[in-house]
Amino acid sequence: MQAAATPIHAAPDWPQVAPLAVSLGDPAGIGPEVLAKAWAVRAAHRLLPFFAIGDRRSIEAVWNGPLEVIRHPDEAAAVFEHALPLMQVDDAHDNVPGQPSLAGARAALDSLEVAVGLARSGTCSAMVTGPVSKAQLYAIGFSHPGQTEFIAERCGVMAGNVAMMMVGADLRTVPVTIHQPLARVADVLTTALILSRARACVRGLIRDFGIAKPRLAVAGLNPHAGEGGAMGREEQDVIAPAIAELLAEGVEVTGPHAPDTMFHAGARAHYDAAICMYHDQALIPLKTLYFDTGVNVTLGLPILRTAPDHGTAFAIAGRGEANPRAMIAAIALAGESALARAAALASGAA
Amino acid sequence: MQAAATPIHAAPDWPQVAPLAVSLGDPAGIGPEVLAKAWAVRAAHRLLPFFAIGDRRSIEAVWNGPLEVIRHPDEAAAVFEHALPLMQVDDAHDNVPGQPSLAGARAALDSLEVAVGLARSGTCSAMVTGPVSKAQLYAIGFSHPGQTEFIAERCGVMAGNVAMMMVGADLRTVPVTIHQPLARVADVLTTALILSRARACVRGLIRDFGIAKPRLAVAGLNPHAGEGGAMGREEQDVIAPAIAELLAEGVEVTGPHAPDTMFHAGARAHYDAAICMYHDQALIPLKTLYFDTGVNVTLGLPILRTAPDHGTAFAIAGRGEANPRAMIAAIALAGESALARAAALASGAA
Repeated sequence: MQAAATPIHAAPDWPQVAPLAVSLGDPAGIGPEVLAKAWAVRAAHRLLPFFAIGDRRSIEAVWNGPLEVIRHPDEAAAVFEHALPLMQVDDAHDNVPGQPSLAGARAALDSLEVAVGLARSGTCSAMVTGPVSKAQLYAIGFSHPGQTEFIAERCGVMAGNVAMMMVGADLRTVPVTIHQPLARVADVLTTALILSRARACVRGLIRDFGIAKPRLAVAGLNPHAGEGGAMGREEQDVIAPAIAELLAEGVEVTGPHAPDTMFHAGARAHYDAAICMYHDQALIPLKTLYFDTGVNVTLGLPILRTAPDHGTAFAIAGRGEANPRAMIAAIALAGESALARAAALASGAA
Repeated sequence: MQAAATPIHAAPDWPQVAPLAVSLGDPAGIGPEVLAKAWAVRAAHRLLPFFAIGDRRSIEAVWNGPLEVIRHPDEAAAVFEHALPLMQVDDAHDNVPGQPSLAGARAALDSLEVAVGLARSGTCSAMVTGPVSKAQLYAIGFSHPGQTEFIAERCGVMAGNVAMMMVGADLRTVPVTIHQPLARVADVLTTALILSRARACVRGLIRDFGIAKPRLAVAGLNPHAGEGGAMGREEQDVIAPAIAELLAEGVEVTGPHAPDTMFHAGARAHYDAAICMYHDQALIPLKTLYFDTGVNVTLGLPILRTAPDHGTAFAIAGRGEANPRAMIAAIALAGESALARAAALASGAA
């Protein structure tokens, strides 16, 4: 399984950044498998050196490639060329792929905790999180809605001030409201919340995507963006004031746009990110176009964090069938962002 | 501008069906232009013979190709090979492209009225409607929400029993609720309404699309289809009962599906139509993928009716810039449906 020992990181044009840390997620899910598969194609995708955080046995159970335990992230780059580096953090429970357990949930949480700590300390330049089971985490007393909120708290940032950005090849979307029932979206949507997400998005595009002057497109909430109030007034009462405020701040922003006509190829060329009012308005176009390769990026944190946009897929774990494309894309994007941020820091722009 | 006089309808495998009728829509919009452009490419797209209904001068103002006034649909097929056939119905007002007027709205309504009458009588085998301005129609006292409801009434069908289907190359979507503000969708969504739309969809797929055993995929309303009630209960309380009822009727149906993961290419291969809970859930995936070629089909009528999925585009009318692809697709689909229905009637299946 070992790829040819090409010194893939010897290219002189690659700046020195610390390696990327990848938490395995739930060990009974497909996280270990897709991470190992990503390592196997590291050269073809020019992935920056990364290391896994988790229990080595959860990888060995689903993969027979080379794996080497490291004690410090500094060792990752050298190991990365011939083996998947891994920092061992687990209470050595018996993991069975496809069979989630409370011990597995604890291992997932431990991995996450270590990853965010390393990212905070700068020992890794970005963190990538494998998929966890929220139900399992809740069962061990996890009190955050998801990994994102946990990471935000560990970074000292209020969850309301981070933004989730979904990234595909030529589309980035940011949902303003996320896991709300559809009937509640209009109630929780406020001008302040739209502004918070949009500002986090602009900062993230500048600092982590290297876009000097980000262009935002803001979606309406209602069919045809309300058609002048005939099909809803949120565009006039809630969304337009946010757009006016952003314009006053110098942000390049348009909208509110009719939600159904803003995601085709011609429209996508006119903005760097779409600010969407609810989960499926952001996720339907992204997953319709980029189902296998969608990456979830958390904006507004002091650290860089990406994640593949899929779940644990317990049903297929351990069969070797898991598609690694989203994990590869998440690692690739974490690397690109790490380089962009390093360049921005070097130039004094960040 | 005239295409080579190839006898494009001489192919022996084309059954005899009556021609298609196309109402021009608002004469100041792009309807006349896109219809003329569609005629010009009739051979390449193997379009069945069609004729326009409207004022010849609204076409002549934007097109210098051959046009011939006919007095009866029976004359259309012969004329169609060398000129665009047109039935003149208008009060001869002065139309200026890009400048909507009340007289233009009356002309649009007259065209629509004639088209539906011909379709009802069987003198044409399907009708295609050009884009109208609702605001202009309302100003002359039009009391229906749109053309669809007008046609339904003329056909003696309650508007609640017809369904709008959006059609792209490999995706068909049916919105259960349509022009509702997003905040009201959950309130107006009922099991009975889902059933009504789904049944109209099944009948339409069998009779007009030649699909013997249609497969439906029903979307959830909430993120992740409610995730077991954690993000909304409509899936359990309203949608699942409709699915159970459809299954009991022998319909091949799955769902409720997470709305964001049901429209990618792999998922689309598993169903013939997606039953969607609201406007943008149906329209975002369709227009993201098929912005230029979306066709609106009205299911549940005794007649066949399609329409290009775009508006009057007054801003570009008269400039020669209008994209005819959606009109071509609407005429092509009307023709395919006319042939499918004729075949079904001949075999006794309809």
